[in-house]
Amino acid sequence: MTKTTAVHERPILTVDVALLALIDERLHVALAPRATAPFKGRLALPGGYVRVDEDADTEQTARRVLREKLGFEPAHLEQACTESGPARDPRGWSASVVYLALHAADALQPLADDGRISLHDVEALPALAFDHNRLIALAAQRLRAKSAYTSIVAHLLHDEFTIPQVQAAFEAVTGHRMNAANFRRKILETGALKETRIVPAAYRPAQAYRLAEPLTDFGQNLAR
Amino acid sequence: MTKTTAVHERPILTVDVALLALIDERLHVALAPRATAPFKGRLALPGGYVRVDEDADTEQTARRVLREKLGFEPAHLEQACTESGPARDPRGWSASVVYLALHAADALQPLADDGRISLHDVEALPALAFDHNRLIALAAQRLRAKSAYTSIVAHLLHDEFTIPQVQAAFEAVTGHRMNAANFRRKILETGALKETRIVPAAYRPAQAYRLAEPLTDFGQNLAR
Repeated sequence: MTKTTAVHERPILTVDVALLALIDERLHVALAPRATAPFKGRLALPGGYVRVDEDADTEQTARRVLREKLGFEPAHLEQACTESGPARDPRGWSASVVYLALHAADALQPLADDGRISLHDVEALPALAFDHNRLIALAAQRLRAKSAYTSIVAHLLHDEFTIPQVQAAFEAVTGHRMNAANFRRKILETGALKETRIVPAAYRPAQAYRLAEPLTDFGQNLAR
Repeated sequence: MTKTTAVHERPILTVDVALLALIDERLHVALAPRATAPFKGRLALPGGYVRVDEDADTEQTARRVLREKLGFEPAHLEQACTESGPARDPRGWSASVVYLALHAADALQPLADDGRISLHDVEALPALAFDHNRLIALAAQRLRAKSAYTSIVAHLLHDEFTIPQVQAAFEAVTGHRMNAANFRRKILETGALKETRIVPAAYRPAQAYRLAEPLTDFGQNLAR
């Protein structure tokens, strides 16, 4: 007990990134085996210590970790939550700031092909290092909740996409089926999409869109 | 630079609580002058270091801080975000896990009367200690965004309330005016309210409600 002293032991502060992508209409997460103890060899999220001599904030820690470990910059990165406690890391009381990263799946395939990551269905994960099963569940829950009132799922597509593609991603992430005309009306009402070009097609040409910046955060409830 | 060593300097980890209440239909935040340097005498949010020998997680740090500093247990407490960086605390690189706490204003009045806190309109704050002006803005933004699709504003009322009272709190927090019949239908659709009793009144008796547990998090968009 150190109650009578002014200085207390500092907790460990780490960042972990749940990088999610849609493969065959199911959410997948990027994992890699840990190179060192604890949990050496066990699959884990990309993550690492905050470096006080390098990182401007924890978001920059997340970006540095993805750059150093995967050579990768995600299409979307946002803070999900901070998990903490005495038991989640055997090295001591620790807090992890958890980031949700989203990207189109085919851009992750080269990383999987050269063995830097493997992609796993978030609903069928083995036992991971630390509390990473829980961190992934929290990040996926954040994505599902935000999908109902923002256009966040479009970050799982390429830069340019059609509205049926956004709807397919929305339905895959949330499990909600929607009438196509309703979905089109509601996603356009958010003001988050910008028209780019007409994509030629045999039956009916399709309007392509990209995301406007910044992402609308206080938008329509798409699921209604 | 310590790149070649395995052990890096650990950041400071603190918790700060933005305790919000509605007074005269405006959001107010509980502040107190800092007793010690840095920013001695400057108004600040209740907060403190994570204690690795006492706290089960950062939420317990938030509860301990409110208990020790204010002798107070809020009706609602949730994590809002984590702010971090080298410049926000002169003592070194720091991260603060920010909690949003909500309570009925009249229960905070005794704390204000005995000088433990003062209550300030969040839209008219002086320059506070650290980055606490920003932390309050982030917490209020979280409350406003969540008010659109949950019944979170009911935590600003007493345990028992009427639907017009919830609507008044919703309108005060979000700035959105709503048709009363629409609001009633949408808030009841969330399933978050339970009927308690009929409150007698001269003109028309009112149905009273309380919040069902747990709080519905993926609900209707009340603002539509």
